[in-house]
Amino acid sequence: MSKEKSYVSEAVMRRMPKYYRYLSDMEKSGVERVSSKELSQRMGLTASQIRQDFNCFGGFGQQGYGYNVSELRHEIHKILGLHNKYDIVIIGAGNLGQALANYTGFEKDGFLAKALFDINPRLIGMSIRGIPIYDIDEMESFVRNNNIHIAAICTPKEKAQEAAERLIRSGVRGIWNFAAVDISAPNHVIVENVHLSDSLYTLSFRMSDD
Amino acid sequence: MSKEKSYVSEAVMRRMPKYYRYLSDMEKSGVERVSSKELSQRMGLTASQIRQDFNCFGGFGQQGYGYNVSELRHEIHKILGLHNKYDIVIIGAGNLGQALANYTGFEKDGFLAKALFDINPRLIGMSIRGIPIYDIDEMESFVRNNNIHIAAICTPKEKAQEAAERLIRSGVRGIWNFAAVDISAPNHVIVENVHLSDSLYTLSFRMSDD
Repeated sequence: MSKEKSYVSEAVMRRMPKYYRYLSDMEKSGVERVSSKELSQRMGLTASQIRQDFNCFGGFGQQGYGYNVSELRHEIHKILGLHNKYDIVIIGAGNLGQALANYTGFEKDGFLAKALFDINPRLIGMSIRGIPIYDIDEMESFVRNNNIHIAAICTPKEKAQEAAERLIRSGVRGIWNFAAVDISAPNHVIVENVHLSDSLYTLSFRMSDD
Repeated sequence: MSKEKSYVSEAVMRRMPKYYRYLSDMEKSGVERVSSKELSQRMGLTASQIRQDFNCFGGFGQQGYGYNVSELRHEIHKILGLHNKYDIVIIGAGNLGQALANYTGFEKDGFLAKALFDINPRLIGMSIRGIPIYDIDEMESFVRNNNIHIAAICTPKEKAQEAAERLIRSGVRGIWNFAAVDISAPNHVIVENVHLSDSLYTLSFRMSDD
């Protein structure tokens, strides 16, 4: 398996997590083998689409009787970089920041929340599931001293860009941005947006009188 | 302006909320006019891309000196269906469901949370920002009697499809799905997914040794 990410399109990149999700669920239900045809039916893709996607990574050697589910899942796990461990900080301990800190599902994939940061004196000093909430003034030294990889930005949108710049200067390489604004970052930093309001607007658009 | 959504690609559909977001921010900062070139620079698109996108809706008559920001925002507001009001229920009053109920930002866009539903007896009877949490057994009658348009699904993934089917039978036309599973729905129902773990896997993929 070779991994030439520069040649991987945005669309393929968006489908890889979906393959991983389906294969994980299949493995959990005890499915051992799957053909590209079966997988395509489950996922609502075409079989040739799936083979093309996998060929971006050198293919996964489907024999005549299909892919081995565990092996394929393992390969995609590696491609997604999920064999790495990522230490995360959450900036903004409001509703969304707290919900992320409370959610345990990301830990099994190797994403570990180490601290939250906020400006609200009533929150500072508290903790969520053992994860401490610190003053935002301590953010940069914490990120530097603890070699933090990823910051989830859950601040109001007016504060997001400034927070991102401080985080990046302190060594963060990935920004998981929940603020309703697009973050500018240098090329070596990856920004992944979760724009909830955009998603709701798309829903509205598709629902309205068509 | 004509609205022929069947001819609008997924990519254009995903950019419309982004235009709306940028134009809203510009209007708020007092910008009155913008050329497609300026808008393209702010948004990281090309000017011809923007003109093409707008042509999907019949164009918005840019004069030699640019678009009127408020008028353009207003047109896109209509295209997105944001002149409608949507009543929402939230299924699952865990961390994420509570965060959605606590967030006031969607209300100004006409999305009104009317109730949450859960199976947890300790939550049932409580309320969040005045929004009541009811027993999941009351979900169908509530949706029917209150003419609910959209359901946000924040249940564990094992429960999401069943909840969606009950909601759709009760008249819901839009599903905003936060569960880590793809929901099947009939054609007249719109499903919009927010797959947080997929988003995190994409971030990991792009961060890992490239």
